Amino acid sequence: MDEFEIETLADLELTDPVLVEGLPGVGHVGKLAAEHLLEELDGEEVRRIYSQHFPPQVSIDDGESELASAAFHAVHTEQGQDLLVLTGDHQAQDNQGHYRLTDRILDVAEEFGVERVFALGGVPTGELIEEYDVLGAATDAEFVEDLEAADVEFREDEPAGGIVGVSGLLLGLGERRDFQAACLMGETSGYLVDPKSAQAVLTVLEELVGFEVDFGSLEDRAEEMEEVVRKIQEMESNAAAGPADEDLRYIG
Amino acid sequence: MDEFEIETLADLELTDPVLVEGLPGVGHVGKLAAEHLLEELDGEEVRRIYSQHFPPQVSIDDGESELASAAFHAVHTEQGQDLLVLTGDHQAQDNQGHYRLTDRILDVAEEFGVERVFALGGVPTGELIEEYDVLGAATDAEFVEDLEAADVEFREDEPAGGIVGVSGLLLGLGERRDFQAACLMGETSGYLVDPKSAQAVLTVLEELVGFEVDFGSLEDRAEEMEEVVRKIQEMESNAAAGPADEDLRYIG
Amino acid sequence: MDEFEIETLADLELTDPVLVEGLPGVGHVGKLAAEHLLEELDGEEVRRIYSQHFPPQVSIDDGESELASAAFHAVHTEQGQDLLVLTGDHQAQDNQGHYRLTDRILDVAEEFGVERVFALGGVPTGELIEEYDVLGAATDAEFVEDLEAADVEFREDEPAGGIVGVSGLLLGLGERRDFQAACLMGETSGYLVDPKSAQAVLTVLEELVGFEVDFGSLEDRAEEMEEVVRKIQEMESNAAAGPADEDLRYIG
Amino acid sequence: MDEFEIETLADLELTDPVLVEGLPGVGHVGKLAAEHLLEELDGEEVRRIYSQHFPPQVSIDDGESELASAAFHAVHTEQGQDLLVLTGDHQAQDNQGHYRLTDRILDVAEEFGVERVFALGGVPTGELIEEYDVLGAATDAEFVEDLEAADVEFREDEPAGGIVGVSGLLLGLGERRDFQAACLMGETSGYLVDPKSAQAVLTVLEELVGFEVDFGSLEDRAEEMEEVVRKIQEMESNAAAGPADEDLRYIG
Repeated sequence: MDEFEIETLADLELTDPVLVEGLPGVGHVGKLAAEHLLEELDGEEVRRIYSQHFPPQVSIDDGESELASAAFHAVHTEQGQDLLVLTGDHQAQDNQGHYRLTDRILDVAEEFGVERVFALGGVPTGELIEEYDVLGAATDAEFVEDLEAADVEFREDEPAGGIVGVSGLLLGLGERRDFQAACLMGETSGYLVDPKSAQAVLTVLEELVGFEVDFGSLEDRAEEMEEVVRKIQEMESNAAAGPADEDLRYIG
Repeated sequence: MDEFEIETLADLELTDPVLVEGLPGVGHVGKLAAEHLLEELDGEEVRRIYSQHFPPQVSIDDGESELASAAFHAVHTEQGQDLLVLTGDHQAQDNQGHYRLTDRILDVAEEFGVERVFALGGVPTGELIEEYDVLGAATDAEFVEDLEAADVEFREDEPAGGIVGVSGLLLGLGERRDFQAACLMGETSGYLVDPKSAQAVLTVLEELVGFEVDFGSLEDRAEEMEEVVRKIQEMESNAAAGPADEDLRYIG
Repeated sequence: MDEFEIETLADLELTDPVLVEGLPGVGHVGKLAAEHLLEELDGEEVRRIYSQHFPPQVSIDDGESELASAAFHAVHTEQGQDLLVLTGDHQAQDNQGHYRLTDRILDVAEEFGVERVFALGGVPTGELIEEYDVLGAATDAEFVEDLEAADVEFREDEPAGGIVGVSGLLLGLGERRDFQAACLMGETSGYLVDPKSAQAVLTVLEELVGFEVDFGSLEDRAEEMEEVVRKIQEMESNAAAGPADEDLRYIG
Repeated sequence: MDEFEIETLADLELTDPVLVEGLPGVGHVGKLAAEHLLEELDGEEVRRIYSQHFPPQVSIDDGESELASAAFHAVHTEQGQDLLVLTGDHQAQDNQGHYRLTDRILDVAEEFGVERVFALGGVPTGELIEEYDVLGAATDAEFVEDLEAADVEFREDEPAGGIVGVSGLLLGLGERRDFQAACLMGETSGYLVDPKSAQAVLTVLEELVGFEVDFGSLEDRAEEMEEVVRKIQEMESNAAAGPADEDLRYIG
């Protein structure tokens, strides 16, 4: 296998498409969001990237192996621009690999006539979130304005340390290749898989790209997560109350 | 030395051969199994791979040095398909190296007309095993059925995290090169070298490939290991009983 | 993107220029010094280097992304030689990258007719500094003498372990390419960003290259840092005095 | 700079030379031994290797910088074979680098007509040594016999884990290139720089190659080290005796 191999699974035309990247990251926000798009708006896999920069690993599904890779799905939307959705289970494993993988991703985007790129991800706050803001960054001032118009927040010196990995390089290398690229980062605690943060990010994306998607299944998944959180909190409070119970028993 | 060098030690024809890989891994199950095959069914070394992706190291045998490498042995079986057995003391040391080494291994398999590949290994359970099940994974549904027919277990989401290293890539890259490849993973505690797990894996392989091998020496080795385990357990129980002894002494 | 890409932002002639490198390092001394030069003597950005050896990262400024890079600014000085000032937020991330990046940097220096290179940095002493000495190292005895004449200190076996990273290689590779290169290392505690150490380094550089720069803003920044140090020391002494205060309260 | 650059400093003929490698390692035994040869038998530097696989670093000597490298010195001996002595301050920093550096070293050896290679090093015992044995390993049985005749020890399964780094690869790659190569490993505690172990290794080398060297300076250095050890042991025993002293004081 070469350093990169890009498999063509289908050839089709997309109308004014945008690239939507959702590889693994903080709170799996980007991955959840991209996968939700594919569940709700039925997409067709068009390209698959294999690379020596992915981990040397196969995943197993029903006993069948699948080599580490990332996949592009084409999604036709009724209302707005079409989507080219990139999902996968892995980031590149080495410094140069991040650069080289991102360039291959942009090659595919170019091939489909993509002009705007949206990198979806999460930004960790370290505490449970009440209101899910979405932070932004983009390659140019014009795009920043568009994001602001869609209620994306821009805070000075956030995210501190910039944006690392494929999401960051889609902006950094994208700009050098004349793409307009933005990163949409949903606030998330950073401790849990966070469907609510993914929903917040998708709500912004809906407005920016002009499509509609049902959030029912994401909301269900969010409730499951909240159930988990409740249980954890109960356990903690019980543990805290423990000694008190002891006392009562002695009194009784 | 080039990145890879493949030495030809013998040229011979194999009848409908399968590749059997047993490089180091969990509980050394794969390595034990492959080496047992070579002890019992006398094989002939046909190829040796050297690589800059192996550790920069020589092993010493009777004062003589041997450069880190992996070896292919050709084994003629009386009953079934012939075997091309890959053994060695090392995995690749870097991410890309795993990919590139596995491709060279498949080159050799191709050269000998191999169509089916068996990667042997162990899967850690974290506890001592009573009954040694063998988990499986394969490149395609047809092969999965063959494995199930040979009592190989398939469990949902196992092994978690997929299969890493050469064993995993023999499936991942093998499939892309039109090999049928399977991984046979013997359950093992993960704490000890495990000849019993190796025997379980070989028993499955016997049925799948159609040969017979004597397990006497593996069983002897298994008993030695159990002796070791017993001693460890004794020491622990004595340690636990320690204080009691003290008391007795004072009483007496 | 290639392994390295050097962007030309302006083409202009420099008179007998010297390269001044100030990439991140101990106490950010070199970075502070180089950036102060650019604040005080208005320079013009002439080249920017991007590289797969920099971290896979963008920084965000007012919502706009900027790919990891290093920049060359051309500075015309009234009195002495012109300056080609290299600044940036990153070192190379891998061993070979340091060598290859440094060679690209020297390519640019060559292009502008640079003959002498000054790598600015800090040397950690482990304690707060009273008097800020500047240690030196150079590619040849003649240059060492020039530095000594400018009150640069040379101590046996210092810096222990030599000089690592781009600063070190500007000397090591520079010499092989017939540059005269020196490293000016301001003593610094190593615990804090150290504007005073940067000022000490620049004072030496002024004399060696023949220009003058105002230190007002650096001195302000130094006072801010000293304020920080004072506060830390107070907190410590209060903490130490804590129990005593308690006693007094009880007595009162 | 290329991945490797080999500088020619002198061209001269050597009579039936052997390569003697003494790069840094356990107890600096090999490095001490090789450097002692150069002090006692005046050699001439003939080649210097620079490499991107060495650390990105310069060392400083009297204020002058020297790029990380390794040097070959030609040594004419009165009695026996000439020596080509390799010394330096660094090993390669990465896996492939070890392989590629060793191949370059063997290129130089070949150029000078070397047929036998001696890699000098130490083997850690974990305790202070009374009698300094020298363990051996070689590329072939004939060479093993020669070593045994010179009182080199061969122990089963020693050194455990084989020989790593350039010393190991000089055997591993040397054999593939038809060199006869041996590693001479002086026993050493592993805790201290060990001139006595270096002397033991050189004593074996003298006999094998047929030259004579004075050990006065090494013995002086060994005594200094023993002085250090004595001081450490005193401090320990005093510390142990501490409480006793206390008691006496109270009694008095």
